[in-house]
Amino acid sequence: MKVGILGGGQLAQMLAQAGKDLGLKFKFICPDEHACASRYAEQIRKAYDDQSAHQELIDWADVITYEFENIPTDMVRKLEQSSTLYPPSGALATAADRMSEKTMFNALGIGTADYRAINSLQDLEKAIETIGRPSILKTRSDGYDGKGQVVIRDNTNLSEAWDTLLGVPCILESMVDFDREVSIIASRKPNGDIEFFPLTENHHREGILRLSLCLDKEPLQSKAEDMVRKITEHLSYVGTIALELFQKGDALLANEIAPRVHNSGHWTQDGTNVSQFENHLRAVCDLDLVKPELLAPAAMVNLIGTLPDGEQVQKYPSSVSHVYGKSERPGRKLGHINLTAKKATTEQFEEQLVSLLELVGEDGLAKMSKD
Amino acid sequence: MKVGILGGGQLAQMLAQAGKDLGLKFKFICPDEHACASRYAEQIRKAYDDQSAHQELIDWADVITYEFENIPTDMVRKLEQSSTLYPPSGALATAADRMSEKTMFNALGIGTADYRAINSLQDLEKAIETIGRPSILKTRSDGYDGKGQVVIRDNTNLSEAWDTLLGVPCILESMVDFDREVSIIASRKPNGDIEFFPLTENHHREGILRLSLCLDKEPLQSKAEDMVRKITEHLSYVGTIALELFQKGDALLANEIAPRVHNSGHWTQDGTNVSQFENHLRAVCDLDLVKPELLAPAAMVNLIGTLPDGEQVQKYPSSVSHVYGKSERPGRKLGHINLTAKKATTEQFEEQLVSLLELVGEDGLAKMSKD
Repeated sequence: MKVGILGGGQLAQMLAQAGKDLGLKFKFICPDEHACASRYAEQIRKAYDDQSAHQELIDWADVITYEFENIPTDMVRKLEQSSTLYPPSGALATAADRMSEKTMFNALGIGTADYRAINSLQDLEKAIETIGRPSILKTRSDGYDGKGQVVIRDNTNLSEAWDTLLGVPCILESMVDFDREVSIIASRKPNGDIEFFPLTENHHREGILRLSLCLDKEPLQSKAEDMVRKITEHLSYVGTIALELFQKGDALLANEIAPRVHNSGHWTQDGTNVSQFENHLRAVCDLDLVKPELLAPAAMVNLIGTLPDGEQVQKYPSSVSHVYGKSERPGRKLGHINLTAKKATTEQFEEQLVSLLELVGEDGLAKMSKD
Repeated sequence: MKVGILGGGQLAQMLAQAGKDLGLKFKFICPDEHACASRYAEQIRKAYDDQSAHQELIDWADVITYEFENIPTDMVRKLEQSSTLYPPSGALATAADRMSEKTMFNALGIGTADYRAINSLQDLEKAIETIGRPSILKTRSDGYDGKGQVVIRDNTNLSEAWDTLLGVPCILESMVDFDREVSIIASRKPNGDIEFFPLTENHHREGILRLSLCLDKEPLQSKAEDMVRKITEHLSYVGTIALELFQKGDALLANEIAPRVHNSGHWTQDGTNVSQFENHLRAVCDLDLVKPELLAPAAMVNLIGTLPDGEQVQKYPSSVSHVYGKSERPGRKLGHINLTAKKATTEQFEEQLVSLLELVGEDGLAKMSKD
């Protein structure tokens, strides 16, 4: 089968890598001269909204998918009308708007932080009376990696906060005093078959994911599965989806969904019998899903801004490096290292993880892991 | 104040008429040579998505509003970033997608018909098992006046129904066995002040509104007000909004919202002390709202396709004709007649209504009113 992809970044790259063994062929649209995916798939080097590029993909592909959600929903909707496209545009539309997303969670009986739509400074002043401080003002659309957000603290001037986000439609969310952030990833087929990956614990710094950790036997696994099952049924979802959650005690509050393969699931490349990428392709190509089984505790450490010395990394026997081939730039995701306990004791795994975190400059996380 | 309007149909026309006494000036964008609103306001005769037209409106207007929801949300969002625009684009986005709309209702604890997102024939086959027949398959976006809908009856072939709607994203809704259709209209200011119009009973034929009836003292008025209050707070709504409901006994199920002045509120021009148009303008211009008070039972009869003989219409002493100046065409809304009981007994009002319905060819409704 032939799979078309909108986007040529690392997610497209890893999809193409995962699809090789399934005998799939890939072609992707990306205007970038140095598209990560170009070493693994044929590139249509045109703008994302280029009509001739769309037509080429429609004519060539059996199914079209996408690797990021910051694409105009209308564009995806048009493609959907002329081709088989998954995940459905409706899921993208919901994920692309924080209000729609949270509203859906609540409609399905899934708890969230308290929130309000903010369309003016007046709305913000009014909402803060109910939501209180600290809270977070976020643009409804187009935010990623902590961009498009302002924390409203006790001394924050509301007018300045509002101006920071340029007056675009926003959402005010109460700040959840969570114990930890977790995510669950699932893949669903057109006929409704669904498979879940084990719950993952996530650590962010400066709004960017730094570390994902899968320790197995999470007591909240089935609760999280129920949530993502409801969401995917509601959206008639097809493909891999990530649901980000806040955990407070036994409670899970939904934060957001990503209608695609997700950074917090990169460890599945080496920590499970089937990766999130492979099951995404199986789902959108209507092939049988593989039931994910955790092989051993696993972790993923993101490589942000600069790459560590290769020789240093090779010292970690249970690690696998995944480098995307991008040039270094502050805050940029350049690759990730998956570490598993497959050939190590839990103690060795933890020691190696601490050491690896220090190597990539995440000393704060390393210290926490030691505690 | 200067008010810019996207659209130049009868709603823009009636807004401009209502704004005259408030001392407002109007300019509207509409590509149509024969725009209804052109007799009451200055026309920018360019395409809706014309950038120079947008800039002209931004430069000229103090506030921009719109008269229809079948406009690209992205376009409205852009305008919103460079101007004061109401109702907010988020409300438009929700109203433009039946899934988002129903999901919002449920999130706010407002009941709806059972529904599912349908992205494929497979989804439809699966959903029909739960939703059952009869049910209605509707396109999620761009439907109006009954277009983009297929009723799934016992003998309906699902594959044909799906093909009828061209494979665009759809929603399957269970068919509600309602007693009657009603709507409530409200207007809300930027500071949250809100005023409600009395509940209206609506009668459709072939998907088009034919008759609206306001009989006052509806026992479900406060229940409907609570619903629309919740919705407008959720959306941080500004302007006039209509909420369409199904009534079954004492229960109200939400069907859809219109983020604009609405056909079922046209009777307010002659039946209340303030019209939905005037309160919309007061809301978006941040002027004090007027609390609507019903002057007497009132009805609105739509003039669809052809206009009745003018002399005949004048025989109804309590009627006011509103004609939009459009050429006749089957299914087209050409005008409406408001009938009130201001100068008549209830009996006379009812007699006149029956006669008026017969005059415009709504014999079925006339017969029902007699019963």
